[in-house]
Amino acid sequence: MATTFYGALITPTTLTEYRALPRALLSVSRATGDIEWLEDDVAAGEVQDVIARHGAASESVDVVRLKLGEFLIPGFVDTHIHAPQVPNLGSGQEHELLDWLSEVTFPMESRFADADFAKRAYSSVIRRTLDYGSTTCCYYGTLHAEATKILADVIHGYGQRAFVGKCNMNRNSPEYYVEPSAEASLTATRELIAHIRALPPPPDAPASEPLVRPILTPRFAISCTGALLDGLGRLAAEDPALAIQTHISENESEIVLTKKLFPPGSLPSPPPLPNRKEKTQTARPKPKGTDPGVTYAGVYDAFGLLRRNTILAHGVHLEEEEVALIKARGAGISHCPTSNFNLRSGSARIGMLLDHGIKVGLGTDVSGGFSPSILTAVQHASMCAKVVALRTGTTPAHTRFTDRQLPMATLFYLATRGGAEVCDLQTRIGSLEKGKAFDALVVSVRSEAGNPAVWGMDTAEELEMGLARDGKARAKTEREELAGMLERFLFCGDDRNVRRVYVQGKFVGGKEWRQ
Amino acid sequence: MATTFYGALITPTTLTEYRALPRALLSVSRATGDIEWLEDDVAAGEVQDVIARHGAASESVDVVRLKLGEFLIPGFVDTHIHAPQVPNLGSGQEHELLDWLSEVTFPMESRFADADFAKRAYSSVIRRTLDYGSTTCCYYGTLHAEATKILADVIHGYGQRAFVGKCNMNRNSPEYYVEPSAEASLTATRELIAHIRALPPPPDAPASEPLVRPILTPRFAISCTGALLDGLGRLAAEDPALAIQTHISENESEIVLTKKLFPPGSLPSPPPLPNRKEKTQTARPKPKGTDPGVTYAGVYDAFGLLRRNTILAHGVHLEEEEVALIKARGAGISHCPTSNFNLRSGSARIGMLLDHGIKVGLGTDVSGGFSPSILTAVQHASMCAKVVALRTGTTPAHTRFTDRQLPMATLFYLATRGGAEVCDLQTRIGSLEKGKAFDALVVSVRSEAGNPAVWGMDTAEELEMGLARDGKARAKTEREELAGMLERFLFCGDDRNVRRVYVQGKFVGGKEWRQ
Repeated sequence: MATTFYGALITPTTLTEYRALPRALLSVSRATGDIEWLEDDVAAGEVQDVIARHGAASESVDVVRLKLGEFLIPGFVDTHIHAPQVPNLGSGQEHELLDWLSEVTFPMESRFADADFAKRAYSSVIRRTLDYGSTTCCYYGTLHAEATKILADVIHGYGQRAFVGKCNMNRNSPEYYVEPSAEASLTATRELIAHIRALPPPPDAPASEPLVRPILTPRFAISCTGALLDGLGRLAAEDPALAIQTHISENESEIVLTKKLFPPGSLPSPPPLPNRKEKTQTARPKPKGTDPGVTYAGVYDAFGLLRRNTILAHGVHLEEEEVALIKARGAGISHCPTSNFNLRSGSARIGMLLDHGIKVGLGTDVSGGFSPSILTAVQHASMCAKVVALRTGTTPAHTRFTDRQLPMATLFYLATRGGAEVCDLQTRIGSLEKGKAFDALVVSVRSEAGNPAVWGMDTAEELEMGLARDGKARAKTEREELAGMLERFLFCGDDRNVRRVYVQGKFVGGKEWRQ
Repeated sequence: MATTFYGALITPTTLTEYRALPRALLSVSRATGDIEWLEDDVAAGEVQDVIARHGAASESVDVVRLKLGEFLIPGFVDTHIHAPQVPNLGSGQEHELLDWLSEVTFPMESRFADADFAKRAYSSVIRRTLDYGSTTCCYYGTLHAEATKILADVIHGYGQRAFVGKCNMNRNSPEYYVEPSAEASLTATRELIAHIRALPPPPDAPASEPLVRPILTPRFAISCTGALLDGLGRLAAEDPALAIQTHISENESEIVLTKKLFPPGSLPSPPPLPNRKEKTQTARPKPKGTDPGVTYAGVYDAFGLLRRNTILAHGVHLEEEEVALIKARGAGISHCPTSNFNLRSGSARIGMLLDHGIKVGLGTDVSGGFSPSILTAVQHASMCAKVVALRTGTTPAHTRFTDRQLPMATLFYLATRGGAEVCDLQTRIGSLEKGKAFDALVVSVRSEAGNPAVWGMDTAEELEMGLARDGKARAKTEREELAGMLERFLFCGDDRNVRRVYVQGKFVGGKEWRQ
């Protein structure tokens, strides 16, 4: 029993390359939700023959045929989103980080003490992120264990792949929204982890692995006492598969306060490093006057919270030493350009991080970012890289990505496969390949999608009209046509162009799901 | 005979203030399309009484009642858009200006030699810009007189307010897309002007003034010989009401080439200046090594092309002397941040220009910009100002706008009233006031608008949920609620939130028009 898709398919391969297949035939097992096989150039008349050659009886196979202007891509991975802040989308543009937290964010989050409110709000939130094509999300909940269990339940019901954590925050937070002690915070965390791990598979779930996973979520170092970070580090050490997410080096004031809260000598010794030889010559030098012994990343590392399944949001102002440390630990960066522009945090040097071999994905950072769509994050990641390149002035001669604009292929990679790496799920998702889960989108750049920002490509004439760049000369190759459609979707698309959303082989969202 | 709107209304007053009226009653004359009167605080039960007090018989008045979450604002003014580039939306992100012109733009524009193609493409283009809420647009056509007449005809048929110009370009353009001589370019320009001025009023047009106006459109100095600019200057001098649009100081290579093409001594004497005392101490100093006698703005000025109805797109790298000159001439700047990020042109110092009293509006600059929506331009103008502020580092103590982030009120002003000023139409459009044309949008931030990026505000509860910022404390004032809705629309809205578009009192676009 399988579902087979026939039509265009685009999937990332490396940071600078992707496969663009005009006539792909891809088969998804209905039993497992995984991709059984992928053939890359099948003529229209040969579809049934190829299916038969793979040993399937034709009556057990549904064939979904994509139209001109439609194509399959891997689902987006949103590596940083605050679920309880979605109702605040488009509020508070005037603030920087620390004021924005106290004026806009904490008041909203505190309302999730009310379980009814949480249930209504989260149902609406998850519907939206799925319909925007985020097949995997790394969610911060609030500090409330109950509301965050509800969040996990809602995600589980909708069939999205996700990491769900409750915020740990027992200091430097308003008195109406703070945990009473490190111990209370740790107890609530253990309770949430147990709840998520006990979620039953949905009745029609094809997957053998859980879609919803727990994640440790110390909000940021500022909001956690050393005792709390120490307790979280112990939890992590007991359970190497347990993911970790937090914020790092978003804003200058935040960095100063973090260093003040964790002076040298206040920190335990970090676990031994596998490799201290990493070179970081082009990263940012440590600011003068700061203590040589403490970095923001070093605080997390001292408590054992920096490892290959740690997701660090922002990393706008990382120092050289931190870049080396993050690389050595194998942690990943969630790049959140919308938020970084919006809260005036700065422009992260993503190209430099890529040149250091650090894993990078994209995050919407709702509602520091004002859009729930990874498409907006793609556009702003492009703009952020261009701002960094302009700031440097001349294009550096000997770098691959550092201080350069990011090519389309790289942006596509960050939104999909890069996000999968940051989540340490690269063997299961992030690209469309045999053996991976079918987490995918059917995208349409046709007029009937109804998004007037996309010049429709329903007919061969419109296709040519939209893509012709060379006056009267040669026609586009099929690969160039697909590249044009991908660029158009990434820069002009919205939820209307996301026709179908699949997670682990199951149809769970998109424009056609709502209709 | 009148149409009267009852509900919330938001309209700009100054660069930093707007009126937000929860219970406005506004009457539009069906004979003229102008706003007859506006009352600012009318109880629901008093609507008929107030209408009667204004002397209207109730049977001759339609009352449109807006719902909670709906509000009236002035229509957007897109002060810079290339109509023939709309089919290229979302293409060519990898190029800077001059390469982008030759690789992406000129090949598409050359196709408008075909009148059938032009008619089909432009019909689709104008439908889109109207539905995004751009009630006035400053359009560049191609170099073709015929295609640009078609553009004017289509706009006229749809009832949009617009300036329409054909590009003047007789050098430094590809041989398949260049005018044969200055004289041919001028003849075609005169022909287009005559065509536009002879357009009949539409059968049911309420306006006594033309909606579609001609505009001189030297593409940029690089593409025009001195003889062509001189001819255009003479045309302008004969006709002070004739508007002018061109590009200025978008990209560093463009500036260098412009100065090379117009060396000192090659320029005629400009018309006398009314005021040479303008101070521009905070503008950009002239780059070292450039000739002291020539600026980019000075080239246009020498030919008499800089005046109060001149629209200058970009102004990213203006020198001190140019800022003073533009101010003295009363010309306006079209700020196109999407394009400036996208083509790596730089970040315009809009706050500095505002502090110098220069008129500024927003432009989408399709397809240098990848969005046809002024909402995107608002978001990117905010981001651009934040990038400029970050570049400077510290917030300057003694400036109002220079190198600071732009408040919501300023962004709203630029998108509406600022654009009207740049078009020299500030007495007729740009705000909702007695005696002005009713160029307006009915906006909805309700869930039923169908845009999942906007947290719906259909009910009092959702309204409070969306806007509460202070935990359990006081309720929002009505003005704060409206401010929240405006911010949400500007940062998260799209065409689905633009329910109805009116130009000169006539319902001509928006989501409800299409349904």
